[in-house]
Amino acid sequence: MSIVSVPSSRAALAESGALLDRYRSVRATTERLCAPLAIEDHVLQAMPDVSPTRWHLAHVTWFFETFLLGQRVPGYRSPDPHYAYLFNSYYNAVGPQFERARRGDLSRPTVADIYAYRAHVDEAMARLLERVDPEEIGALVLLGLNHEQQHQELILTDIKYNLARNPLRPVYRKQEIPRGASTVPLGWRRYAGGLCSIGHAGHGFAFDNEGPRHLTYLHPYRLTGRLVTNGEYLEFIGAGGYERWEPWLSEGRRVAREQRWEAPLYWECRDGEWWTYTLSGMQPLDVHAPVTHVSYFEADAYARWRELRLPTEQEWEHAAGELAVNGHLQESGIFHPLAAAGDASQMIGDVWEWTVSPYAPYPGFRPLAGEITEYNGKFMVNQMVLRGGSCLTPRSHIRATYRNFFPPDARWQFSGIRLADDA
Amino acid sequence: MSIVSVPSSRAALAESGALLDRYRSVRATTERLCAPLAIEDHVLQAMPDVSPTRWHLAHVTWFFETFLLGQRVPGYRSPDPHYAYLFNSYYNAVGPQFERARRGDLSRPTVADIYAYRAHVDEAMARLLERVDPEEIGALVLLGLNHEQQHQELILTDIKYNLARNPLRPVYRKQEIPRGASTVPLGWRRYAGGLCSIGHAGHGFAFDNEGPRHLTYLHPYRLTGRLVTNGEYLEFIGAGGYERWEPWLSEGRRVAREQRWEAPLYWECRDGEWWTYTLSGMQPLDVHAPVTHVSYFEADAYARWRELRLPTEQEWEHAAGELAVNGHLQESGIFHPLAAAGDASQMIGDVWEWTVSPYAPYPGFRPLAGEITEYNGKFMVNQMVLRGGSCLTPRSHIRATYRNFFPPDARWQFSGIRLADDA
Amino acid sequence: MSIVSVPSSRAALAESGALLDRYRSVRATTERLCAPLAIEDHVLQAMPDVSPTRWHLAHVTWFFETFLLGQRVPGYRSPDPHYAYLFNSYYNAVGPQFERARRGDLSRPTVADIYAYRAHVDEAMARLLERVDPEEIGALVLLGLNHEQQHQELILTDIKYNLARNPLRPVYRKQEIPRGASTVPLGWRRYAGGLCSIGHAGHGFAFDNEGPRHLTYLHPYRLTGRLVTNGEYLEFIGAGGYERWEPWLSEGRRVAREQRWEAPLYWECRDGEWWTYTLSGMQPLDVHAPVTHVSYFEADAYARWRELRLPTEQEWEHAAGELAVNGHLQESGIFHPLAAAGDASQMIGDVWEWTVSPYAPYPGFRPLAGEITEYNGKFMVNQMVLRGGSCLTPRSHIRATYRNFFPPDARWQFSGIRLADDA
Amino acid sequence: MSIVSVPSSRAALAESGALLDRYRSVRATTERLCAPLAIEDHVLQAMPDVSPTRWHLAHVTWFFETFLLGQRVPGYRSPDPHYAYLFNSYYNAVGPQFERARRGDLSRPTVADIYAYRAHVDEAMARLLERVDPEEIGALVLLGLNHEQQHQELILTDIKYNLARNPLRPVYRKQEIPRGASTVPLGWRRYAGGLCSIGHAGHGFAFDNEGPRHLTYLHPYRLTGRLVTNGEYLEFIGAGGYERWEPWLSEGRRVAREQRWEAPLYWECRDGEWWTYTLSGMQPLDVHAPVTHVSYFEADAYARWRELRLPTEQEWEHAAGELAVNGHLQESGIFHPLAAAGDASQMIGDVWEWTVSPYAPYPGFRPLAGEITEYNGKFMVNQMVLRGGSCLTPRSHIRATYRNFFPPDARWQFSGIRLADDA
Repeated sequence: MSIVSVPSSRAALAESGALLDRYRSVRATTERLCAPLAIEDHVLQAMPDVSPTRWHLAHVTWFFETFLLGQRVPGYRSPDPHYAYLFNSYYNAVGPQFERARRGDLSRPTVADIYAYRAHVDEAMARLLERVDPEEIGALVLLGLNHEQQHQELILTDIKYNLARNPLRPVYRKQEIPRGASTVPLGWRRYAGGLCSIGHAGHGFAFDNEGPRHLTYLHPYRLTGRLVTNGEYLEFIGAGGYERWEPWLSEGRRVAREQRWEAPLYWECRDGEWWTYTLSGMQPLDVHAPVTHVSYFEADAYARWRELRLPTEQEWEHAAGELAVNGHLQESGIFHPLAAAGDASQMIGDVWEWTVSPYAPYPGFRPLAGEITEYNGKFMVNQMVLRGGSCLTPRSHIRATYRNFFPPDARWQFSGIRLADDA
Repeated sequence: MSIVSVPSSRAALAESGALLDRYRSVRATTERLCAPLAIEDHVLQAMPDVSPTRWHLAHVTWFFETFLLGQRVPGYRSPDPHYAYLFNSYYNAVGPQFERARRGDLSRPTVADIYAYRAHVDEAMARLLERVDPEEIGALVLLGLNHEQQHQELILTDIKYNLARNPLRPVYRKQEIPRGASTVPLGWRRYAGGLCSIGHAGHGFAFDNEGPRHLTYLHPYRLTGRLVTNGEYLEFIGAGGYERWEPWLSEGRRVAREQRWEAPLYWECRDGEWWTYTLSGMQPLDVHAPVTHVSYFEADAYARWRELRLPTEQEWEHAAGELAVNGHLQESGIFHPLAAAGDASQMIGDVWEWTVSPYAPYPGFRPLAGEITEYNGKFMVNQMVLRGGSCLTPRSHIRATYRNFFPPDARWQFSGIRLADDA
Repeated sequence: MSIVSVPSSRAALAESGALLDRYRSVRATTERLCAPLAIEDHVLQAMPDVSPTRWHLAHVTWFFETFLLGQRVPGYRSPDPHYAYLFNSYYNAVGPQFERARRGDLSRPTVADIYAYRAHVDEAMARLLERVDPEEIGALVLLGLNHEQQHQELILTDIKYNLARNPLRPVYRKQEIPRGASTVPLGWRRYAGGLCSIGHAGHGFAFDNEGPRHLTYLHPYRLTGRLVTNGEYLEFIGAGGYERWEPWLSEGRRVAREQRWEAPLYWECRDGEWWTYTLSGMQPLDVHAPVTHVSYFEADAYARWRELRLPTEQEWEHAAGELAVNGHLQESGIFHPLAAAGDASQMIGDVWEWTVSPYAPYPGFRPLAGEITEYNGKFMVNQMVLRGGSCLTPRSHIRATYRNFFPPDARWQFSGIRLADDA
Repeated sequence: MSIVSVPSSRAALAESGALLDRYRSVRATTERLCAPLAIEDHVLQAMPDVSPTRWHLAHVTWFFETFLLGQRVPGYRSPDPHYAYLFNSYYNAVGPQFERARRGDLSRPTVADIYAYRAHVDEAMARLLERVDPEEIGALVLLGLNHEQQHQELILTDIKYNLARNPLRPVYRKQEIPRGASTVPLGWRRYAGGLCSIGHAGHGFAFDNEGPRHLTYLHPYRLTGRLVTNGEYLEFIGAGGYERWEPWLSEGRRVAREQRWEAPLYWECRDGEWWTYTLSGMQPLDVHAPVTHVSYFEADAYARWRELRLPTEQEWEHAAGELAVNGHLQESGIFHPLAAAGDASQMIGDVWEWTVSPYAPYPGFRPLAGEITEYNGKFMVNQMVLRGGSCLTPRSHIRATYRNFFPPDARWQFSGIRLADDA
């Protein structure tokens, strides 16, 4: 069995581009994303859930070293034997791990050391990729590149969280964020449902958790054609949404009170005006842009307050399958969600969309075989599925079947709200 | 819309017995279950998740007072206005609540006061039930009685937990627990699946979370004909199950290490022999009896270690629909699960069976209307569904569609393991 | 060396009363203090620092059993071998201890069992005391009785704390608390100081921490003739004492903010009027009575706010040596501090008085020898000394050299404030 | 009243060197100490008690800015108004403070920004010092310089702690640490005691907590002529010192077990050999060198295990007054304590020596007046006094009357043990 769903023929692989070119491109993108940061920024870890930039840069490199170079290149040596321990995230199969919550306690290897590590591995990977039959290792290389793309998004969401803690509200990269001119109507779209196929079909790369493709039964439903806006969310706040108990899950209310939530993460009220922290610094809130940095608990409470609900992941995927991709992704370069034209054109991009579906295995699910087996399966509890990618997700990384997942109290991802209802 | 699914005609109600008789019977059963306890026992709360017996006795009474007497009996007065606050569990709709984790800090009202409170409410309820048309309040009364039956089970699981903390390992009630003579074969049973109906159909009482009945698509599957035994679970322990990382969910392993789990709750190894605490005191472990007091994390790890899985709640319900009830319930009077004859005869009774299904709303789910709306819906996150009732569940309280739910680390319920696999 | 400072001749012992009479009297007093409690009350432990009444009743009994009966009475048997573990407080020399913070998780042995335990030990003690030369065991018996007297005070301070947590604010024992008519002037008293002797001189019982008597040098100082009143403390509150940073120790301010202190423990403001919880239930605050249930941090902040200070324990003892005992003690039966006539007449009684002295060994201090060695010495860090006894202290238990000690954030003792200054 | 004890005449000030020269020298030393660090190192805060190097560099600068430039230089402007908040440690008198435990969450201002801040303040200070009469501001400048010297020591102890958390055990600065050849005898020294004067006498700089000088009565005592060595401490470990309860204070034992102490901080046992982390990296343990990085609890337990005790701070000061300074201080450049020749020659230098004295005000103590009042007084609770300076303390900063203080569980300072006894 192939460890990931990848093209089984050279032709297919060629379609997705020469592997070494793709490798170089993804690796370069990662470094380009870090370029605006000061050295000091690379060290921060303002909460256990985020990782320092220096750790991300090293960890994605360790992934190639551990699962490819260490296995396939006789005599390969890491620059430092401690890296195997320091940069292993959670793979018990390959050894113990430095404590996750304490990654921010480390300053060495320095950023310069880590860039040297990246160069060392890139060189060895280039030699390997020139030498080996792509069919033999292509799946693992693609996994490593998709893994690095996941961390590209995390590098940015994590540094946003880290920098936001600073009273100086530092700017990651100054640039104009286009403001919306108006808000299009909700634009409900109806779906008849019935017996549908869900999950990745086998063409192109996909993670193990996207399969196997399987039948599921959907009751008639409808989805809004656009995302909930900041302006609409302000109505929820204005109506006492954070003080009322009615719309909240019991656990959500407990968390919201304990953490004193009064608005989405990064919102600040200054002299009666709402501002929000972005990677371009503090900005006046754009009422036409999609609300983001809300937890599942807030998304669910908002929907309930509107007497609606969030979609299931199956409803979402069934609807998204029909649509053109029209949202803002990493390539747009804005790194903040923007107001859009409706017609479900932002299902892919802008913000990850919370679904009411707990993250669970599909019928017949089997994790990846081998040392990589821990990649996804072991996290299938106490998390909710999000769909559709965000303004930080690379275009080549997202698809309708993609299942992202975070605990229901997570707010530091670019997570937003699309409403659903029974038809 | 009726607030709960109850018989809509007098005839149907008559079938389920005269309401007042049923009321008296359930109330008397609760008190009979508490009879073996010392006054001191009623005060204990050894962890936030359990409640003192005195609180249970009062809370179920408060339920009738609040949702029936306070609404339907003009001039009704509670013995003490503080009770509305002290004995409200989590119903924001009717007022604030005394802090759950601190219920064990209270000694007043005393046990005698609480029995007087019960008598006061019982008298008022008797007058109400004699006077009012059952069709008008029957649904609420049935809900109150089913609610009290839920708390009958909690009274016993909670007092078991509380007493077990005492190095004296006190006996709730001394009695013989029949030991198994042998273990029957696993007895796999296959199901073709397909498009099936799941959920309560509308005859007899059911909670809101059991409906609406709806179509779902099941892939072919199989279930074991009997529960996993203590003997089999010992093999898991012997194979280093608690030390190995492979079978565990990431979160499960974290909890297991943090809490130093090495066996199911209540197991003790004394001079190389395993014993377990029961409501009849310490007993040598019966290798033929079903394993119980395991968390979801342990149930899932056990199944994974056997290269199998737990059933989904839909698979379980579909299978259980066909079966005769043959397990041990509250009426058996043993209060501990017993070895059985296989043939899926213990799907109802003995132990609650963990499913791989997170607790989520069914398609089209609507919570109860009115002040009672918080009963179930607001807990639908970060919990797993259990099915089938236990040795503490009254016969009249359990059915194939019944959805129990607990967080995946909960161990103090009589929770056990039935294995499943793709067919 | 005698393990405690006790009379070395029979004559001296006779002076302090026949030992068995004294034993019976102290033991009976303990039980009399518990008589007003419901069985349920005996189980409570609303914070780790307090113990359940049932535990106190058993622990003081265990003390006689362990240090006297077990050593001196061949063949003596405890009613239950678990008691040695359950009722050991902190004496590692005689074995392990059940976890202090979890004493409230236990309901067995029941209160009736514990009274049977007391009777069992009392009978054995009576036989021992009739048989043995008092000179041989008198010191240990006196220690045991003084120990039980310490727990008499704790039984009441602990049950006050436990009952106060209940929204019903239950009454321990209903009785009139005389209210003050006026507040006498502060009445400063000056002391020249110089080289003084401090510590217990050797006549009558004293704890090891009160000795040895030794020279110390005191600079000229003055003390107020009466305690700080509730009325004066209200001025501190009214002046923003709890909000201002200036008067507070850094650690005190941290604790006060974290625990949201806004007034002494047990004070409640209802419709603009201050009330306080007492063992006789809620009472309007008596502005003429001494303030009590303040922590060291509050006492110190109050003094600093008045531009004064608390006395050192040496200053206090030097001053108290000259005075008649005129305060209210346990025998007054009020169990609450009362307004007094000034002239330093309340140095003994009413409230324990915080001193600025950390609890440290006197020069030449040696702990008790033998198994009892842990009684006092091992607590000499991070605690402050209090002097003078309270309204709960028996007359026969208190003296000018007596050193009580609690951490600086403790509030549940009857602790109050006497002001001092350099002369 | 002068806010600190400083020379009152120009002559005296001239003796201590021209103020501006001294200012430049201290400031330059601070920067020289940071020179070996990588930029990344400046960000770390591995526990709340330590601060990032970048914070120290800025905070000592803020001190001059706030208490001198802001007060004395009309029109002075800080480079950034946020610095007043970010770099205030605990002075409520001058405004709010960024949360201490979260200093490590900040990367901006960057290290380069902070050096620019230092230059900005240095320039303004130079202009001020050239212009103003030293008598007017000399006391505050000296306080600022002594403050910066305190932080020089903290920069090194904190970075040692931070770097030690890294499995790479990074080297701050590689250099040879001379190893002891032998251990000299304990060399007890006796002191008759009696009525003695303690505290700073008024010549030269001293902190407020060192005065006023006052009489105290000392009983005859003796001190060891040298510090306890690593070799001797190994005997304590070998005798089960960390497992036995007898030598420990109750609170000390609780902490030691909770934190799993088995040796001083930074000790590691590798293949049966003891190593210790130093600012020069991992080194084999030198049995002749003084033990260091022990808490008060360990120092006290060690002394008790030897059936001795620690000195009081008065005993220590009385003895130290007579002695020549012969220990290793910051100027030795080793940054690790070394074995010495006995004769009490290391009372100043090498390691801070725990005393049995809780940190409390001297009789007649008055804190500094004005905004600087919070410098010392508000920490006088739950801390123990240490005396004598360490291998990191500048020579010009230490004296016999100097009172350092840390909580009894602190281990990351260079703290060691000198034994005492009653004579």
